[in-house]
Amino acid sequence: MNLSQEQKKILVAQAIKVRLNAYAPYSNFAVGAAVLADNGEIYDGANVENAAYPTTMCAERAAIFKAVSDGERSMQALAVVTQKAGYPCGACRQVLSEFSQEAIIIVANDSGEILHETTLADLLPHSFGPEDLGKELESDTHG
Amino acid sequence: MNLSQEQKKILVAQAIKVRLNAYAPYSNFAVGAAVLADNGEIYDGANVENAAYPTTMCAERAAIFKAVSDGERSMQALAVVTQKAGYPCGACRQVLSEFSQEAIIIVANDSGEILHETTLADLLPHSFGPEDLGKELESDTHG
Amino acid sequence: MNLSQEQKKILVAQAIKVRLNAYAPYSNFAVGAAVLADNGEIYDGANVENAAYPTTMCAERAAIFKAVSDGERSMQALAVVTQKAGYPCGACRQVLSEFSQEAIIIVANDSGEILHETTLADLLPHSFGPEDLGKELESDTHG
Amino acid sequence: MNLSQEQKKILVAQAIKVRLNAYAPYSNFAVGAAVLADNGEIYDGANVENAAYPTTMCAERAAIFKAVSDGERSMQALAVVTQKAGYPCGACRQVLSEFSQEAIIIVANDSGEILHETTLADLLPHSFGPEDLGKELESDTHG
Repeated sequence: MNLSQEQKKILVAQAIKVRLNAYAPYSNFAVGAAVLADNGEIYDGANVENAAYPTTMCAERAAIFKAVSDGERSMQALAVVTQKAGYPCGACRQVLSEFSQEAIIIVANDSGEILHETTLADLLPHSFGPEDLGKELESDTHG
Repeated sequence: MNLSQEQKKILVAQAIKVRLNAYAPYSNFAVGAAVLADNGEIYDGANVENAAYPTTMCAERAAIFKAVSDGERSMQALAVVTQKAGYPCGACRQVLSEFSQEAIIIVANDSGEILHETTLADLLPHSFGPEDLGKELESDTHG
Repeated sequence: MNLSQEQKKILVAQAIKVRLNAYAPYSNFAVGAAVLADNGEIYDGANVENAAYPTTMCAERAAIFKAVSDGERSMQALAVVTQKAGYPCGACRQVLSEFSQEAIIIVANDSGEILHETTLADLLPHSFGPEDLGKELESDTHG
Repeated sequence: MNLSQEQKKILVAQAIKVRLNAYAPYSNFAVGAAVLADNGEIYDGANVENAAYPTTMCAERAAIFKAVSDGERSMQALAVVTQKAGYPCGACRQVLSEFSQEAIIIVANDSGEILHETTLADLLPHSFGPEDLGKELESDTHG
């Protein structure tokens, strides 16, 4: 699946905008993310920190959880914006892999420059998934 | 702070609605949650599971992350709906405590009956917070 | 269940010792913990941070995971040591509740003074547990 | 760095042994892991589940936390054993990357057959690390 330059710009702009709402008093490291779902809608998220660091949440996952809570089950692309254009962490890759192995990942800095473009499959090779559990999942009942 | 019966009903109805979008193929345990922010807006969330169980997310936190990503920093109330009206887990309590020690917690079943009503302070006494880190947080820059 | 003053001192001393191994380059907040299992053995843990804050781990849980990995399924007590004697976070309370609702919690500062003593039941009232999932767990097969 | 066949067998055997202690009543999916630290010591861990799925812990991380709590800061190799020889999840890769980008990863089934052998760098390309935070870490004070 391909994204147009225009679609990429829109995603990055949304990530830059939501990044202003990052709650990051512990790291002072603000992150914004935007997900393009298969139905064409965009869902955004910022990082949400906590005094107990392990209960902190990444921006990428906040965006994915919002999309899934809205009924989405497949994502075309995810854009993430930080000051220095860092890639998503391993846990965010894991969460996205449940839905979209082939999602395009766009990594931009806070000036909106896209410095990296890749796919989830490239960022999480040999991912751990439902088949590793040896389970047949019941059909997803979301309507 | 008090909620009217009407406000409680609206929150629970929103949690019941979003619960339909729960992605819970591993536990088959669907959860819906809705947060009432101080500005009067409602944010909802469903649980989002993962083959790697530790990267699963609870409905309550999905709702809180959505609110915070939208710029909210204080919550009046949180409603959670499950089949048997279970209370939020300890990690969800921890995440909410960063924002709203006095939030009202409403626990309902999937018929919409409110079986428990309490506050976060009652559910997480002696919470761990920024003061325990011995840090002065920089002022939150959200605009 | 009661602990002798001697047992408490031993637990706190172990938590102080393991705290020296805390890996906390992001928060500079070192934590040490020690768990007394039902069989009388002590298991310790330090906090282990990560550049991706959500994958950080607390000292209390590191100690509990060590105990459970060794076959333990019930804990008599948990001691946690920080500079200012902070209580365990909500997520650590949740993890301990799976095993020991009545565990004694000992909170000490880095001089070894026990400033608080309570129980898990007091720190996590109305905990979320297996019964809330509406499941009958298969018997635990640990030998 | 290379491991001898003998070292690999020892690691896998340790992972098989600790796997018997897995606490997995929700997934019925037992995992065992063993880490070989740079000093030659082996640390093991099993998965530890929780009714609140997000507070579950993987075997790989349980082993790493044990090693780090013992003062280790670099790992030569990690072996993981499951019924069908699944790779570590993204969050476990993230945790290991903080310490050892070049660690060897050994993936075996419950008969002890090594089905995959790779490195962390291959499993988590473009990892998110301290440099992405734009921070100079204070020197680690572990003695």
